[in-house]
Amino acid sequence: MPAQEQEAQIVLDAKEIPVPPSSFVFTERDVILYNLGIGATEKELQWTYEGDDEFAALPTFGVIPQFSASGSVPLDWLPDFNPAKLLHGEQYLSIKAPIPTSGELISTARLLEVLDKGKAAAVTSIVETRDTSGKLIFENSSTLFIRGSGGFGGRRNATDRGAATAANNIPKRAPDATVEEQTTASQAALYRLSGDLNPLHILPEFAAIGGFNKPILHGLCFMGISGKHVLQKFGPYKDIKVRFAGVVYPGETLVTMMWKEGDKVIFTTKVKERDTTVLASAAATLVDGAAKAKL
Amino acid sequence: MPAQEQEAQIVLDAKEIPVPPSSFVFTERDVILYNLGIGATEKELQWTYEGDDEFAALPTFGVIPQFSASGSVPLDWLPDFNPAKLLHGEQYLSIKAPIPTSGELISTARLLEVLDKGKAAAVTSIVETRDTSGKLIFENSSTLFIRGSGGFGGRRNATDRGAATAANNIPKRAPDATVEEQTTASQAALYRLSGDLNPLHILPEFAAIGGFNKPILHGLCFMGISGKHVLQKFGPYKDIKVRFAGVVYPGETLVTMMWKEGDKVIFTTKVKERDTTVLASAAATLVDGAAKAKL
Repeated sequence: MPAQEQEAQIVLDAKEIPVPPSSFVFTERDVILYNLGIGATEKELQWTYEGDDEFAALPTFGVIPQFSASGSVPLDWLPDFNPAKLLHGEQYLSIKAPIPTSGELISTARLLEVLDKGKAAAVTSIVETRDTSGKLIFENSSTLFIRGSGGFGGRRNATDRGAATAANNIPKRAPDATVEEQTTASQAALYRLSGDLNPLHILPEFAAIGGFNKPILHGLCFMGISGKHVLQKFGPYKDIKVRFAGVVYPGETLVTMMWKEGDKVIFTTKVKERDTTVLASAAATLVDGAAKAKL
Repeated sequence: MPAQEQEAQIVLDAKEIPVPPSSFVFTERDVILYNLGIGATEKELQWTYEGDDEFAALPTFGVIPQFSASGSVPLDWLPDFNPAKLLHGEQYLSIKAPIPTSGELISTARLLEVLDKGKAAAVTSIVETRDTSGKLIFENSSTLFIRGSGGFGGRRNATDRGAATAANNIPKRAPDATVEEQTTASQAALYRLSGDLNPLHILPEFAAIGGFNKPILHGLCFMGISGKHVLQKFGPYKDIKVRFAGVVYPGETLVTMMWKEGDKVIFTTKVKERDTTVLASAAATLVDGAAKAKL
């Protein structure tokens, strides 16, 4: 390992800071609320009616139980740390077992790596979410970019972690499937009830401080909407990874373009009104069998 | 009291059936979910953002904590009782104290009167909702019509209970204010998360059994939407009463027409697309001071 690729002492020390496990207790109502928050409708009873034989959480529900654990990884040890300079860069979710629709889940977070990107630090943490018997249900990894916190002399390049870090380059052909969905003006107001109460997503004054014209939609919300499109077109998947490449304003129309490559669905999502990419380097790995997908 | 106006023995016996109190524990999230369920938007931060200085439940939230208590009043003693023949006829809500935005409320229901309408029985129950210190917060009365359960020889006419039973005839002039609001196709799917999970409001097969083309919106949902219109145009009120006169399908447009008469706002609500009255004999009593209303 070359000298500049060694872990900085400050990072090694930070990895020793204990992060307490966090409990998430939920009911079918919370599942429906999440599903509605990412645009499931009254026509899709499997996602909005607890009495449906096929009632289920949409797969990206897996980011919800871990949310508070993920947010509890300390970052204030970073040089010149400023929470207002924090951006959600990437999210990877691996679904390890059938998703329960109620009960208690316990999430444990740990710092995986902190990269020194020069001007920014890129902090990746891993959260394992288990049921009360200890069975692993979800593994999440999320990468935060903290502008102004680089230059501490740490490693620059991420460890290869397979699907969690894949580039997912888009094939040079027309998409195999495209889904368009208009979000509602109240999408963020509804989605936030699933746990991310950051005022950035509802309070205009707060959004202005962050440099936005108006409140922005949660990244994990439009990741969920696109993940729903992948499910609708190609069937169930066991993992999903996205890079957050742009902001979405509630009310805008998302266009998810999808390419099936073996057992992977590579996708990218744009905002139609501004022709801007908002999800990139994104893919989902289909579960065995779903690879023969309906198109 | 004339002979036909005497309480039937079957009713006197039914009044002796004990109804256990029911507890409702809630957070600000439940308040926002209710407010969104009756069409509050991300622009109305006082109803959708818990951090707003004026954060509050919309006044018709008062029907929510009592919902399960109200539903626990036994009806199966009625002759030929069939729950599929039950219609929500009227609702009266009196707001006795400022509405908390979280905590625990205890509701106690009792049967007030059961009228023999010939073919149908009209059952009115009263629910008192108190905080844990015993302070009265809400009083609700609801009247259910049970088709096929009349003819038991009871009283025919309701006791006069002031605002709770007022006819609220519409003045012979154009409305003083009108508010139009389109509901969303998912309105019932969202509203039901506030507690009324009756499949009539989401499951097409169940709605068909009830004789409807498709699932219908909850009566208490469109009562809430119209109650919001009254608040928006005339300010706070201390009670509200409606008669449910027709069904609303999610996605239809409600038109609330309002007339101010002294401290009362008399209103009626129509579905625009079908020019059908859905709320009648309706009024809200403004709190002292709000009688000088902005129009």
